[in-house]
Amino acid sequence: MRIILIGYGVVGQNLTRIFINRRAELFNNYGFRPRVIAVVDRGGAAVNPKGLDLERLLLSKREKGTVAADSKFGKPGASAIEMIESLEAEAVVEASPTNIKDGEPALSYIKAAFRTGKHVVTSNKGPLALAMPVLTELAEHNRVYFRFSGSVGAGTPFLEFAKRCLFGDRIIFIRGILNGTTNFILTEMVERGVSFEQALKKAQDLGYAEADPSMDIDGFDAACKLVILANWVMGKKVTLKDVSIQGIRNITRNDIESAEKEGFTVKLIGSIGDKLEVKPTKISKEEPLAVGGTFNAVTFVSEFAGEQTLIGRGAGGVETASAILRDLLDIKQKLAARVWPE
Amino acid sequence: MRIILIGYGVVGQNLTRIFINRRAELFNNYGFRPRVIAVVDRGGAAVNPKGLDLERLLLSKREKGTVAADSKFGKPGASAIEMIESLEAEAVVEASPTNIKDGEPALSYIKAAFRTGKHVVTSNKGPLALAMPVLTELAEHNRVYFRFSGSVGAGTPFLEFAKRCLFGDRIIFIRGILNGTTNFILTEMVERGVSFEQALKKAQDLGYAEADPSMDIDGFDAACKLVILANWVMGKKVTLKDVSIQGIRNITRNDIESAEKEGFTVKLIGSIGDKLEVKPTKISKEEPLAVGGTFNAVTFVSEFAGEQTLIGRGAGGVETASAILRDLLDIKQKLAARVWPE
Repeated sequence: MRIILIGYGVVGQNLTRIFINRRAELFNNYGFRPRVIAVVDRGGAAVNPKGLDLERLLLSKREKGTVAADSKFGKPGASAIEMIESLEAEAVVEASPTNIKDGEPALSYIKAAFRTGKHVVTSNKGPLALAMPVLTELAEHNRVYFRFSGSVGAGTPFLEFAKRCLFGDRIIFIRGILNGTTNFILTEMVERGVSFEQALKKAQDLGYAEADPSMDIDGFDAACKLVILANWVMGKKVTLKDVSIQGIRNITRNDIESAEKEGFTVKLIGSIGDKLEVKPTKISKEEPLAVGGTFNAVTFVSEFAGEQTLIGRGAGGVETASAILRDLLDIKQKLAARVWPE
Repeated sequence: MRIILIGYGVVGQNLTRIFINRRAELFNNYGFRPRVIAVVDRGGAAVNPKGLDLERLLLSKREKGTVAADSKFGKPGASAIEMIESLEAEAVVEASPTNIKDGEPALSYIKAAFRTGKHVVTSNKGPLALAMPVLTELAEHNRVYFRFSGSVGAGTPFLEFAKRCLFGDRIIFIRGILNGTTNFILTEMVERGVSFEQALKKAQDLGYAEADPSMDIDGFDAACKLVILANWVMGKKVTLKDVSIQGIRNITRNDIESAEKEGFTVKLIGSIGDKLEVKPTKISKEEPLAVGGTFNAVTFVSEFAGEQTLIGRGAGGVETASAILRDLLDIKQKLAARVWPE
């Protein structure tokens, strides 16, 4: 499978490392032979239609800051769109940074890939949160696969779980902790008796929260994931503007303590039922959802199989790269079996 | 799909109810049209190669205690083996009672189905725990599908989760609470401060534990499920005799209290690593696995995707029937796509 990789940060680099380390196994067990023919980062691109040397890519990125510095295959200043449109490839892996204002430039990359008949795997929440109904329709129209396991829960397969493991059942309600940073902050407030500001500071010191923490603490990250779940798992045609969002910025020690006294704990909960909501919620400590630290957790309520909760850590470059690999293998398998769609 | 249903207890009856209630949806969404051509219970069988009237079956079971009492299609005294061998059908659903001594009569039913080229779906742990390596090989030899989702976790898809959602990864360790009854007993001991005997009595009063509770409290039920996980998920060729088993019969209030003091809680944990073990184990209350009540919970540790925990209730006739339906739909889909194997 010929792959164009857009974005060569932690996730992209880890993906190429997995390709290197598991080359033999991926071929022997799954008949999967990934051939990365182009990689694009901020400095430009590296291109070789016969397949790039991945070790050399990693080296050039580490030593010179961009894959475009490669003396033989580098193309300084080359753009992602140009690569997607001009190269022949089966799949585009889109791993550029998330932007929830207008989803760009990832949104344009994905559309260009669809237009030129390429399957797309992304871990980028921005385009999905803003335009998922349109994107899934475009993919179908162009008869290409569109996968995004890494966008919700990194290595924890929330999306596949709902779609594949509860196959044949009807999911009627979803609720969960969809952001590890806010879960960490709330857990610190409970366990160490600190204020919101102190807990946030610690999350920033530990690298869990960004310098501008708004995406996490104001609930936008959780809301993006909720939109993806609602579209993919429950077939709702919704975008970010359909979610009622309230973050944890105003949670006080008093809120935490009064909940604790009643045997409850406060979590930033996203829920999908009649409406889509993200807001701080008191939940019973007996619920499987009541996990602390940086865990993500989602409870799926289905008509016949009952209630299931899946818990895992929702972050990490290796984990997200492993989700992208799962998506690529899924596409490979679907193509081999000629199953369309899904 | 023509189906022979062996065993018409709670699970079998619920399966036919699901077929009745979801007839239109199963056909429209999955192209699945189940045709139950024979049902066997202790009284004999009801047979109609054109497909039995399921409402009539339920009525005859309820009013006369056996499907064989049906005036038109009943065959009092007919045996399951006879039905499996003489009738043309695509699948056998085996839902007879569990026997972990020799796996019979289910073991013979399953083999007869394989021999005559029929796919098998079962929720019966007995034959799996005792002979899973042989059974999976026999199924493959006869080129039929063998599915048993309902045997571990009832409606909670532990098996599918590991196999399908962590596809492409390598599961290196599994540990979990695989029996809801013992989890209930241990939770009662912690929360109400009662003795093992008192907690067991309550579990029996509530119908969670049998009059002879050995299967649960001595760890055999958990060990059976461990064997199934080890074979199906990790490719180990093991049976019940390979599991080191210790139950919770000798757990005292003292054990519980001393664990609690250190921030731990005692659970009956099954684990698969270098060896297979079921034994009472102290685990941290912070672990996602530390769920109380009748919950089952399994943590899968995989090489790249990290640690994931799946939690759900592990019992119930409707839930187990929903797992059997998932298996039948899976087989239907595999046959349609002509994917072999898996």
